[in-house]
Amino acid sequence: MPAPSARLAELRDHLAAAGLDGFVVPLTDEHMSEYVGGYAQRLGWLTGFGGSAGSAVVLANRAAIFTDGRYTIQVREQVSAADWEYAPVPQTDVAAWLGEHAANGARIGYDPWLHTRAWVEEAGAALAPRGATLVAVETNPIDAIWDDRPAPSDARLDPYDDAVAGQSSAAKRAAIGDWLTERHADAVVLTALDSIAWALNLRGRDVAHTPVALSYAIVDADGSTDLFVAPDKVDDAVRQHLGNAVRVRDRAEFALALGQYAGKRVAADPERSVAAIVQALEAGGATILAERDPVVLAKALKNPTEIAGHRAASVRDGAALARFLRWIEAEAPRGGQTELSAAAKLLEFRQATGVLRDTSFDTISATGTNGALPHYHVTEESDAPILPGHLYLVDSGGQYADGTTDVTRVVPVGPPSAEMRDRFTRVLKGHIAIATAVFPDGTLGGQIDAFARRPLWEAGLDYAHGTGHGIGAYLSVHEGPQRIAAPNYPGGAAMEPLRATMMLSNEPGYYKAGEYGIRIENLVLVEPREIAGADRDMLGFETLTFCPIERTLIDSALLTPAERAWLDAYHARVLAVLTSELAEEERMWLEAKCAPIGG
Amino acid sequence: MPAPSARLAELRDHLAAAGLDGFVVPLTDEHMSEYVGGYAQRLGWLTGFGGSAGSAVVLANRAAIFTDGRYTIQVREQVSAADWEYAPVPQTDVAAWLGEHAANGARIGYDPWLHTRAWVEEAGAALAPRGATLVAVETNPIDAIWDDRPAPSDARLDPYDDAVAGQSSAAKRAAIGDWLTERHADAVVLTALDSIAWALNLRGRDVAHTPVALSYAIVDADGSTDLFVAPDKVDDAVRQHLGNAVRVRDRAEFALALGQYAGKRVAADPERSVAAIVQALEAGGATILAERDPVVLAKALKNPTEIAGHRAASVRDGAALARFLRWIEAEAPRGGQTELSAAAKLLEFRQATGVLRDTSFDTISATGTNGALPHYHVTEESDAPILPGHLYLVDSGGQYADGTTDVTRVVPVGPPSAEMRDRFTRVLKGHIAIATAVFPDGTLGGQIDAFARRPLWEAGLDYAHGTGHGIGAYLSVHEGPQRIAAPNYPGGAAMEPLRATMMLSNEPGYYKAGEYGIRIENLVLVEPREIAGADRDMLGFETLTFCPIERTLIDSALLTPAERAWLDAYHARVLAVLTSELAEEERMWLEAKCAPIGG
Repeated sequence: MPAPSARLAELRDHLAAAGLDGFVVPLTDEHMSEYVGGYAQRLGWLTGFGGSAGSAVVLANRAAIFTDGRYTIQVREQVSAADWEYAPVPQTDVAAWLGEHAANGARIGYDPWLHTRAWVEEAGAALAPRGATLVAVETNPIDAIWDDRPAPSDARLDPYDDAVAGQSSAAKRAAIGDWLTERHADAVVLTALDSIAWALNLRGRDVAHTPVALSYAIVDADGSTDLFVAPDKVDDAVRQHLGNAVRVRDRAEFALALGQYAGKRVAADPERSVAAIVQALEAGGATILAERDPVVLAKALKNPTEIAGHRAASVRDGAALARFLRWIEAEAPRGGQTELSAAAKLLEFRQATGVLRDTSFDTISATGTNGALPHYHVTEESDAPILPGHLYLVDSGGQYADGTTDVTRVVPVGPPSAEMRDRFTRVLKGHIAIATAVFPDGTLGGQIDAFARRPLWEAGLDYAHGTGHGIGAYLSVHEGPQRIAAPNYPGGAAMEPLRATMMLSNEPGYYKAGEYGIRIENLVLVEPREIAGADRDMLGFETLTFCPIERTLIDSALLTPAERAWLDAYHARVLAVLTSELAEEERMWLEAKCAPIGG
Repeated sequence: MPAPSARLAELRDHLAAAGLDGFVVPLTDEHMSEYVGGYAQRLGWLTGFGGSAGSAVVLANRAAIFTDGRYTIQVREQVSAADWEYAPVPQTDVAAWLGEHAANGARIGYDPWLHTRAWVEEAGAALAPRGATLVAVETNPIDAIWDDRPAPSDARLDPYDDAVAGQSSAAKRAAIGDWLTERHADAVVLTALDSIAWALNLRGRDVAHTPVALSYAIVDADGSTDLFVAPDKVDDAVRQHLGNAVRVRDRAEFALALGQYAGKRVAADPERSVAAIVQALEAGGATILAERDPVVLAKALKNPTEIAGHRAASVRDGAALARFLRWIEAEAPRGGQTELSAAAKLLEFRQATGVLRDTSFDTISATGTNGALPHYHVTEESDAPILPGHLYLVDSGGQYADGTTDVTRVVPVGPPSAEMRDRFTRVLKGHIAIATAVFPDGTLGGQIDAFARRPLWEAGLDYAHGTGHGIGAYLSVHEGPQRIAAPNYPGGAAMEPLRATMMLSNEPGYYKAGEYGIRIENLVLVEPREIAGADRDMLGFETLTFCPIERTLIDSALLTPAERAWLDAYHARVLAVLTSELAEEERMWLEAKCAPIGG
């Protein structure tokens, strides 16, 4: 395999031969996915970057890689400074950088299946003052030089039982049909893989950790649907599950099918539909309604069956994690454990439930300085021994048929420093401030994010990630549209009203570069709150995740009486919920971890 | 004078004669001002509405008035339900309503000097599906039927001394020139009256309570400026103050002058420039840069002279308000006082300073149920007696040459109820949460707004206005771009980073419809904060307003020790700062009001 440097040279040769002065390489797929299959990992192949978000621009004589604050350290470790400039997002972006650095009259290539129309317009406008232009390529030039590029997955589709989904696909598609009728629209193009999986009660195996399948769907106003998917993925069981109102078509026909809506009004989500889709609809004579994919909100509002399923998954998963925490508490001080061995042990505990489908994402098993990288991904090369004096951080989750979990805990190896305890306690105070928040219906996630940060701000500290993300029901571990973060958070603005039955993570943190990282993450459910004398409809959070929060890291003198009461009540609930799942000696351990904190 | 109903009929006749099927009536002027002169009060003349924000649409057979949550009650009291539908903003807006209710093929008139281009495009798009169109009128049809419409003010301009402004106009205009040069631009059109007053170190008398003059300015890249203003407003002193680099031209020439930038790059603020300006620039062959008016941020960052001036104004104004509070505490229980008599007395105390130029806005003197209207404006008709059992709310400020003040206090007449004390204390907790907030440089106002609301939210309560607005230096009492409010606040999104030297109000409140209103408002200055061990540049607030907060309304058991400490420290500072301004018996009163609250 050529080294990234040689790959860059080869790409430049290829571009020159194709009459292009540059090319843009995003980290996404033709579904604008956050997590993408190996076949679409072009950015990583070209640059060596292993993070989950970023993009790159290659010009004839310079090249830049764009990453946000989460990857400031990682990009410098993984991507050669000799070949690449590091461009910080949101301070700059691809369009602005092109506007500044493209040559006059340059032809900059882009793959119209990997960018939104809005991006194409923005980048085109940035290039215009130089007489430079964006040029859509027919085939991606990276694919032409990437010899051993993996093929897209050919894994088969699985039906997802209505009894677990809580609603039949027919009912979901009928609701989408009603949504179209209200808008006098004929059809909606679904491109987001989790939207399609949700709407059709299907699950797939094409993306690591996220049970979705490479597919497109077009739902008509009568609820009938064209599903575009590789034919080999569909067996009789799936056909029967889908029924007659779902027409299974070859994924290769999708682009052509978009051209057959002349005179129709077709909804397409401008953030989730790539430019090629919009262009194909327009070329075919359709009128496009730029509306958010109607599944996005429907999927975020969990039904009672999904909520009950998640509760069951939470208990099962919490017990597995508690067993792991007991194990690491005993093993780590003896030495010999590493990040990889610990992650493997945690996987064993989850697998012992007998119903684990997959982890929700690559487990973040990070000790000491690695914990300071919020999105650290342990590899054979990075694997570090877990040593006394470390904080060990584990952020992990399980994919179960009845729910997707996501939880972070931190444990000390040997006695923690006073500073570690101060920082951990501030993070805990922020976590409790979210867990106990009460707010009017309609409040945006961006309005309450600072509750989690205030205890850190008071010490001049902060964390460079959001406080909470939505989560799927046996789907994506990161699911929109709701989010708790700054209103202008680069990873996605937190401008969605929080509504009852939404699920979110609650995960403030603190990262001291070169020393340690802290994060406390539970999942929460938005629920209505009755308050005597209230003159508004109010919401609050029910915490769904059950696992002890490490008491030796808590400086209880920093907690208010109300915070101590929350912690004690939480631990009492953890004990009550997990007890039946645990063996006698495990229960005794948990009782000690869950004893009142005092103050 | 015809009643509003007759005016509406007359307008409809006029529109029909002009071949129009409707007309849009915003409450603004050709500068997109928040507060407008009498000549531009077309909405109030037509409908009877006395609020400071709203708009209306008149069609042949129906008409609607659009107001936000602040005016839900007021609009129903002032505007006839027989003639007008009440349309709530932001749930609907003029464009959406037109799209729903205009007849097929309708021609809807609008005055291009009273709307932004963005509004014209949005409303035009909403009408398009019905084949209806927006039609720009040459002259406003309301002006044609408004017989006794006031003429625009002919008041003269006043120089504003560089020594008080803290920076010469030449230096300010040079900085604007640098801003243009950075953007390869030739000129910027200034339309906001306070931007022009700030940039030229001028003050005017054309808008009640805001010392600005009806004018336009075009600043060139070399800092030289065309000032368009009625010639009678400019005397020799003003000419000498402006110097040779400012060319004084007749305001009537402005529209023509916009046509003379062929081939030039001209910046115009899309939110502050009306459609007629954009159209004139385009018709003349200019390239428009849609950028925010560069004065907006420059003016928000107060210089040391402005800050020192404000401190002096605050002390003077705080002493006047303290005298008033002492007076009302003594007088109100005796009976015979009304909202108007109290406001008149407060004005007397401010005038006794000898340097009051004007009030900052119409004093909100509101007792009992009137206090529940956050933007209540007392009139001869509404004037209510101040009675035992009331809460009396006074929101007021002074325009002094060295600063603009804005402060709200509430006092009980007779013993307050337990509920009043609970609500007041929650509002105070919110006020303290803002006053003591510490946050990273770059934090948006929208991120910290909920700090002020949380104590109310916990009781199921809230308030339907923002928590803080910017304020001018002897300029507008409401000044952008910074704001503390929800990120999606209808009155203006709070998406501006807070920066050191910005000034804001801190004014949470609570309003119980039909019973009472509470608001506690101080002004604050954003200042850098040094915190030992900090790893971020942090900011905090210095409270600038000095006046006691009514202790009989505080339930100190609801305060945390830290909140009690803040209150005691604040009162100690009030006492220290105001003592030298007060006579002996006033000082004794203030000492009692400022004694430690205990707990």
